[in-house]
Amino acid sequence: MTINPIEWTGKSVKLIDQTKLPYEYTFVEINTYQEMATAIKDMIVRGAPAIGVAGAFGVALAAKETTEIKELEKIGEYLKSTRPTAVNLMWAVDKQINHAKKIKQERHSGLDPESHEMLNQVQHDIYDVLVRNALEILNDDLNRCKKIGEHGSSIIPGGANILTHCNAGALATAGYGTALGVIRSAFAKDPKIKVFANETRPRQQGARLTAWELVNEGIPTTLITDGMCGYFMKKGMIDLVVVGADRIAANGDAANKIGTYTVALAAKAHDIPFYVAAPRSTIDMKIKSGDMIEIEERDRTEVTHINGKSICPEGVNVINPGFDVTPAGLIAGIITETGIYKPSEIASSAILSHK
Amino acid sequence: MTINPIEWTGKSVKLIDQTKLPYEYTFVEINTYQEMATAIKDMIVRGAPAIGVAGAFGVALAAKETTEIKELEKIGEYLKSTRPTAVNLMWAVDKQINHAKKIKQERHSGLDPESHEMLNQVQHDIYDVLVRNALEILNDDLNRCKKIGEHGSSIIPGGANILTHCNAGALATAGYGTALGVIRSAFAKDPKIKVFANETRPRQQGARLTAWELVNEGIPTTLITDGMCGYFMKKGMIDLVVVGADRIAANGDAANKIGTYTVALAAKAHDIPFYVAAPRSTIDMKIKSGDMIEIEERDRTEVTHINGKSICPEGVNVINPGFDVTPAGLIAGIITETGIYKPSEIASSAILSHK
Repeated sequence: MTINPIEWTGKSVKLIDQTKLPYEYTFVEINTYQEMATAIKDMIVRGAPAIGVAGAFGVALAAKETTEIKELEKIGEYLKSTRPTAVNLMWAVDKQINHAKKIKQERHSGLDPESHEMLNQVQHDIYDVLVRNALEILNDDLNRCKKIGEHGSSIIPGGANILTHCNAGALATAGYGTALGVIRSAFAKDPKIKVFANETRPRQQGARLTAWELVNEGIPTTLITDGMCGYFMKKGMIDLVVVGADRIAANGDAANKIGTYTVALAAKAHDIPFYVAAPRSTIDMKIKSGDMIEIEERDRTEVTHINGKSICPEGVNVINPGFDVTPAGLIAGIITETGIYKPSEIASSAILSHK
Repeated sequence: MTINPIEWTGKSVKLIDQTKLPYEYTFVEINTYQEMATAIKDMIVRGAPAIGVAGAFGVALAAKETTEIKELEKIGEYLKSTRPTAVNLMWAVDKQINHAKKIKQERHSGLDPESHEMLNQVQHDIYDVLVRNALEILNDDLNRCKKIGEHGSSIIPGGANILTHCNAGALATAGYGTALGVIRSAFAKDPKIKVFANETRPRQQGARLTAWELVNEGIPTTLITDGMCGYFMKKGMIDLVVVGADRIAANGDAANKIGTYTVALAAKAHDIPFYVAAPRSTIDMKIKSGDMIEIEERDRTEVTHINGKSICPEGVNVINPGFDVTPAGLIAGIITETGIYKPSEIASSAILSHK
């Protein structure tokens, strides 16, 4: 089964409703940028690369309503505000807005502001181009994931036990996945590999999404709670860790789902290599170090409730950071579509020249 | 509100049903050793010191039915098998059985095997003594917890932020608690201390029990998921860690609820002192190192279900170790009723002479 979390129907976007998995495999149809913003915010679609693609389609859908640049910019800011940590969303939305601007400027000289027909034609052209762009970003991401998988699989030892945290899978990307892309590619070559999936509280993407993806593909997967990883590492049952990333700073620090840093510390203590798999669009050269990455704070109910039911007494305080930062020093390598790099190499021109 | 997880009614044992907390504060009446075994196994009563007390009452209840030593020994083995990791259960059950043996031997010389009256009298005496013993173990544990609290509070810095994992509270002991005893005593002296409670998946004793105990007493408590602890440590928001223990080896290695070891690794990486609080009955001199401690494997549904509802796809593998071992090298000190010791001092005669 091929998982396509984001599909273009020709006039709308069809999203797998990831909040319903693994209980129901259903879809949500997105017709407007407002619906897309809500879908991103509510994590119907999630995962840094996937929300980049979703954001690109969000701008395209907005262009059905307006191509006034000021309006589009406002809509872009609104879309970007839905999830502040993942750089891919910022990157994709800005790319779309800039494209719309460029077309406007190109056509401006020949534009008769009195001609509604001409104006409509420009709007239509912009909408068309933005949809094409979004589809390109989607296909591009899928290809990048497959390359990430190819590069990453080369470093997986035979019969390895691989730990992953959260879901950096097909569901988190245009398809195939980054960390799970590495696992998919490795499994295709060596059906003896096994996966440990951290549950990933609070939202349990490991239990709900990663386990669902891998079990569906017949990749042997053991679900563990987040606190257990140290125990299995000490027992020698984990050979390496591979996770995704939401933003990578110029110094190689990587922001990823909350809990990743604790896993990285445990891996370091046991000399287990810890890899980050992400497309190069995740690298944010404007951010010098991980300390500067904005960490989204999410609603307390994600911690206090599971499946709609409370797990704690009322009156308890909650802090719910959505992400944490793993310093470059804990990362053995960053697996990208152009190869595997040491965190210190990320900023070098060699890698960025491909971008 | 004083929390008494185990009370003797004069003919039965009244347990707080800890599986219902924090939603319902209800009690279960235990009339037989079989019911006690089930209550321990199902974690209606849990926590190493508390199940020691419960086990002692279990043997006393058994003596209502039989005082045949062979029978009592079988019952003792059955009670001990319900939770294999906590040494307190073994210690308390053996203590009771040995006491019954001693009384039998003492009376044996003057016993007329034909006299039912005499035999009944001996049985009655044994039952009485075992109940008194169990009450003594209960009161003794309560006193030890208060001393642990007193000693432990001396090392809590003013206004400290204290992280704890699982529930080593009043509910886990005869009352007052070990790790939470330290926190209670510290809070009585310094109302500015604050607590971070790890949720403690799979069974969420941190969210369900620790948060409930502390919120009821007005001790400011922030609930976090287990994976978050590294994040808050890195931010400088945690000053020290204090947890309980289910068994401490002669070399100072400490078994505690699964997830504790991962917390200890994160604490070490941030130079945050990690303390274990436990009564001396938790020290098992027969166990040379933590590697020899038997780790209970519990049912997969504890991982796959929360509040009776699945959180993952069917077909995923699960391993569910109930405990892990934190090596002595990660432990700053072991807080006992006779003082605070370095793990390496645990085996020394100085501490054991008090036992």
